[in-house]
Amino acid sequence: MSYYRVGHELLRELCEESFARVGFTKDESKIITDVILLSDLYGIESHGVQRMAMYHNGIKSGMMKVGVEPEVLFETPLSATIDARSAMGQLAAHKGMSMAIDKAEKSGMGMVVVKNSNHFGIAGYYAKMASDKGILGLSFTNSGAIMVPTFGRLPMIGSNPIACAMPAHPHDFFFDASTTVVTHGKLEVYKKLDKPLPEGWTIDEKGQGTDNAAKVIENIAEKKGGGILPIGGSGEVHGGHKGYGYGMIAEIFSSIMAMGMTSNYCLRDGVDGCSHGFVAIDPGMFGDREDIRNHLSAYLQEIRSSEKAQGAQRIYTHGEKEAEAMRDRMENGILINKGTLEELEEICSLRRGDVSSVL
Amino acid sequence: MSYYRVGHELLRELCEESFARVGFTKDESKIITDVILLSDLYGIESHGVQRMAMYHNGIKSGMMKVGVEPEVLFETPLSATIDARSAMGQLAAHKGMSMAIDKAEKSGMGMVVVKNSNHFGIAGYYAKMASDKGILGLSFTNSGAIMVPTFGRLPMIGSNPIACAMPAHPHDFFFDASTTVVTHGKLEVYKKLDKPLPEGWTIDEKGQGTDNAAKVIENIAEKKGGGILPIGGSGEVHGGHKGYGYGMIAEIFSSIMAMGMTSNYCLRDGVDGCSHGFVAIDPGMFGDREDIRNHLSAYLQEIRSSEKAQGAQRIYTHGEKEAEAMRDRMENGILINKGTLEELEEICSLRRGDVSSVL
Repeated sequence: MSYYRVGHELLRELCEESFARVGFTKDESKIITDVILLSDLYGIESHGVQRMAMYHNGIKSGMMKVGVEPEVLFETPLSATIDARSAMGQLAAHKGMSMAIDKAEKSGMGMVVVKNSNHFGIAGYYAKMASDKGILGLSFTNSGAIMVPTFGRLPMIGSNPIACAMPAHPHDFFFDASTTVVTHGKLEVYKKLDKPLPEGWTIDEKGQGTDNAAKVIENIAEKKGGGILPIGGSGEVHGGHKGYGYGMIAEIFSSIMAMGMTSNYCLRDGVDGCSHGFVAIDPGMFGDREDIRNHLSAYLQEIRSSEKAQGAQRIYTHGEKEAEAMRDRMENGILINKGTLEELEEICSLRRGDVSSVL
Repeated sequence: MSYYRVGHELLRELCEESFARVGFTKDESKIITDVILLSDLYGIESHGVQRMAMYHNGIKSGMMKVGVEPEVLFETPLSATIDARSAMGQLAAHKGMSMAIDKAEKSGMGMVVVKNSNHFGIAGYYAKMASDKGILGLSFTNSGAIMVPTFGRLPMIGSNPIACAMPAHPHDFFFDASTTVVTHGKLEVYKKLDKPLPEGWTIDEKGQGTDNAAKVIENIAEKKGGGILPIGGSGEVHGGHKGYGYGMIAEIFSSIMAMGMTSNYCLRDGVDGCSHGFVAIDPGMFGDREDIRNHLSAYLQEIRSSEKAQGAQRIYTHGEKEAEAMRDRMENGILINKGTLEELEEICSLRRGDVSSVL
């Protein structure tokens, strides 16, 4: 696939304008764009501007509402429950994590759950909001069901990512991953390339392993059965029941606590309705913040410099790839593929003259 | 292997006596025994009375100290940091989770971390302490390094389990799993049976896949390199970096926050030194506790009664197998194998007349 580079400042400006044009305030447009662009800056193409078309379609269809204010239904000094009222997921989630961080800064811990929301981009963005303030952040979301529980045939659980960010030198620990073996976006890539899927990723409508990406995507969309396996794969031999358990933990920290729709009800009849959960924990509750940061930093360094497997080049710690991608994208521009370029020409008035071809 | 059944009340009495005999108070002996027996009652043989010999050896060698009181080093209304001072892990952990629950009952949330501890049994015991009170419980521990980070050759991370328990009908959600593909105990079983390990479980001293359980166990013990893979297996194709990330989260919630030894320093020179973390969160901070419990119960029921994969008999939700094992063991006695029976004859004066042979 052909790839292009676009300066991150220009791309930011154009995305913000596109959201302002459909009715979001300047501040709202900035938040939505910032979440989307962090994904691209971190090298996570799937959740970056390649989703601009999805968001604008969702806004057009009324799935994502413009001009609604997420409502705080219930609040305590340490917690809150928010009804997003079908606002953009990024706006509801940004509000949720901001409140959790405020509470943690005042009291040591904060947890906020959000229901009736929409796709919120990368879960890690919100965890990072906390680590940027020197605080441990956790972020959870449920989503339309794509994960089939161990021994099941039907998807009952979403991709349900869990993200965790914690202050460290030279860059924060940053973990953000779906609790499925792979994301739906990865299947889309295999479908485009017409490549067979690795064994242990997906199952067909009978609950048997399949390598046919197109078929799995169609089955999920048409709710015929089959879907993506939890981390650990099929059955229990490689811990599939563990991945299924992590998916359930994400569900408990989002839809269950928020009394929102569970994954098996999300994304039906033109409504997303997903839920999120945000936790902020001040390490200063346990000792000296800087000591704790240094302690984690030393451990991460020991892991990175430990001996490699024969044939391996490098051991990464979580957040390292993202920090490197960020440096590259800030300097050389954000990487977008041809399909995304064409979409952005339409949505954002991005012009061919603004980009340079790289691959 | 031959199996026997022993009544749980008799076994409890004998285990308590064995701890009292080496100097623990009556209350301490009760707590240690309760943690060990819950594992057997839940059908988790690896962490039950088959570990009695390990604990008594640890007490004899001085790794686990009798008569020391875990010390609270730092405390806030929501948090505490405890120095276990090499006490039995069960005692330090029971104190830690009790404090976290107290704090959650007063303020909504509580988190306590423990350092300089010892093996604490099943992580799930402490999560269950919270769910028994109608509260969400999380429990983490690090441990002697057995997990090799993605692309590495040396174990740098422990089995690092994460446990989560949350109130539900007809039984609580109960998840307790190492963040490695399998536990060290599972390798021991394969070694005893002289069976080749499934692909994707372990790597040898060069960082390459191996099916030789005896060799991996020896390599871990002698720190020659190689060990158990994270959930998701080798490399990144099946999400090995995710399992490695979950292991790191357990590390952050235990040794990092507690300023304790990281896994790569645990279990050296006759000192365990592991750390634990306990979180209690009152669902009442987000809405009505009973509504939330019912919401989770309904979702679990929907998953259990969803369609099965072709050839599969049943879909389990987490905690179901444990609840069934508990009913069986309470009624028919705890299952112990021949080797454990012989150990218990020595440690606990268990007599052949007390057991019935079953297999």
